[in-house]
Amino acid sequence: MARVVPLDPLRRAKRAQASSAENPSRLRGDGSALTRLTALVEDDLTAVNNLVLQRLLSRVPLVPQLARHVIAAGGKRLRPLLTLAGARLCGYEGTRHHALAACVEFMHTATLLHDDVVDASTVRRGVPSANALFGNASSVLVGDFLISRAFQMMVEDGSLDVLRILADTGAVIAEGEVRQLEAARTSTLSEQTYLDIIRAKTAELFAASCQIGAVVAGRPAPEEEALRTFGLNLGIAFQIADDVLDYGGEQTLLGKTVGDDFREGKVTLPVILAIHRGNEAERAFWRRTMEEQDRRPEDLLHAQRLLQAREALRDSLERAHHYGAMARDALGLFPDTPLRRVLLDLVDFAVDRDF
Amino acid sequence: MARVVPLDPLRRAKRAQASSAENPSRLRGDGSALTRLTALVEDDLTAVNNLVLQRLLSRVPLVPQLARHVIAAGGKRLRPLLTLAGARLCGYEGTRHHALAACVEFMHTATLLHDDVVDASTVRRGVPSANALFGNASSVLVGDFLISRAFQMMVEDGSLDVLRILADTGAVIAEGEVRQLEAARTSTLSEQTYLDIIRAKTAELFAASCQIGAVVAGRPAPEEEALRTFGLNLGIAFQIADDVLDYGGEQTLLGKTVGDDFREGKVTLPVILAIHRGNEAERAFWRRTMEEQDRRPEDLLHAQRLLQAREALRDSLERAHHYGAMARDALGLFPDTPLRRVLLDLVDFAVDRDF
Repeated sequence: MARVVPLDPLRRAKRAQASSAENPSRLRGDGSALTRLTALVEDDLTAVNNLVLQRLLSRVPLVPQLARHVIAAGGKRLRPLLTLAGARLCGYEGTRHHALAACVEFMHTATLLHDDVVDASTVRRGVPSANALFGNASSVLVGDFLISRAFQMMVEDGSLDVLRILADTGAVIAEGEVRQLEAARTSTLSEQTYLDIIRAKTAELFAASCQIGAVVAGRPAPEEEALRTFGLNLGIAFQIADDVLDYGGEQTLLGKTVGDDFREGKVTLPVILAIHRGNEAERAFWRRTMEEQDRRPEDLLHAQRLLQAREALRDSLERAHHYGAMARDALGLFPDTPLRRVLLDLVDFAVDRDF
Repeated sequence: MARVVPLDPLRRAKRAQASSAENPSRLRGDGSALTRLTALVEDDLTAVNNLVLQRLLSRVPLVPQLARHVIAAGGKRLRPLLTLAGARLCGYEGTRHHALAACVEFMHTATLLHDDVVDASTVRRGVPSANALFGNASSVLVGDFLISRAFQMMVEDGSLDVLRILADTGAVIAEGEVRQLEAARTSTLSEQTYLDIIRAKTAELFAASCQIGAVVAGRPAPEEEALRTFGLNLGIAFQIADDVLDYGGEQTLLGKTVGDDFREGKVTLPVILAIHRGNEAERAFWRRTMEEQDRRPEDLLHAQRLLQAREALRDSLERAHHYGAMARDALGLFPDTPLRRVLLDLVDFAVDRDF
């Protein structure tokens, strides 16, 4: 597959904004790999969405009310889609993957709820975050409920392998989050530590989502491993692209706010590269803003200029393409089908998306 | 078994304080049913404690550091003791119950961590709470880690029954906590709703802790059910006693602070009884302090006087004895052994304890 040369992210964002003005459906990514994947497993996804709503129900009305706010707020359903696609790629023809895809979405939603409490975020996907609307206490507890509900559904499914994979993933995610608390606000954060953190926080759940597709299909270890590797590298690429978008997107695009990471003093790959490549004055700037947490209104624009000057956004996307390439190669052992082609395109979509 | 007439809780607390001045070991409850139970399963409990410390380990140092702060802070290990005792009562002679007792302690610790964030508590068992020392963010995330670690250990054990019981329990606990958020600050809280909440928040984990003892022993349904019923009613009795102690204990006793529930405006059984039995002026007092959250320094003493005048503490303990009696009767189908006798005494200990 030809290597896609990434556009300058700021230009990409402008281009997206322009095209969305001409064609509002662009905002929903019509025609993208994500849309095509969604179309390919449409019936499955409908079943998953129904199951999600049904299993959110509780005798305590606030539970579904709060959870629905997050789940319905326009997520891409990327992780459940990976479970559905993984199972189908392995030739699975049953329905067990519906409940497991819902589990994955519940676990993801729980981490979103807890993340927003941890980061004291007030906005998610352009709307007030659950903790802003319902309070931190409710967000913590409904997150806990969703984790337990996910395990209940895994127990109903009955696969100890799936239970093991997702319990392991839950522990790794929590460790990654704690590590990020300690590490991410130092200007000496290494690229390797950054990678360890995003692997734990993001990529492991992508990996698990894909892997359990192979598990329900009862496929041999190499296919399970291949799907896991695909998901892991896709997740790393996805998160790097996310961290680039945080400096290059536009607030008007799907509520994505520019500069969240900067305002939180969160050191991500673009910043790491800019620090490594910067002169003493630049490093002093990053130390002040990221480590001493002394930020002024004009600093974000200056940060964006430094990231451009040091080609840090462009090269972060290069790194993302590297993981994307590993993700694509992992699918080599599956036959060439429309579904596999969409999954290959999904990798580029994850890196080059505008939102 | 002869019914123990409960002492006036304020007098009990004074008595305990006096006797602990004479004999400091009284503070550790030497000679109590809890101490005798601990002695009966001493080797098992040592194995559990070792396992707890070992399975807390993580590549991220803050995880065991924070978790150890809570777990080592002098808890009674009541829930793991129930798993150990339940298994032994069923004649179990293996070691699987060690890991499962550790799971139960991890789940309990996770709820403590999240509770303290939810209630913005600064003290637990007389020492600064984990969130006060390490921050809310770390407490939320380490709690999440402990939940996942518990499920990892259950998966290693391999019993889907145990997984189902504890996943169900986790969901019920979270629902109970959310319900309490909504319900517990209204002066019209009914005794039934209060019971539903403490059952979900406290008693279900007691029940599960006992029940999984029967599950590892492979005992038939009636014994599993009996242990579950024992734990459930013991948990309800324990929590009612806890809510009474909150108005009647002494701060010097094991760091138990008097009036926490009152200061948080949390309506518990003593207050419910005092409201039901109070005149219009008294109800106005409870409405102001519990519902309008308008509390003045002198209010706690007045609240304690009203609870005394309406015999609300004494009768709450009567209610606790009722559930205690059900707990004791549930053990009727097990043979009369020293372990069973200690468990029967444990019920009185749970209700009439001084701390």
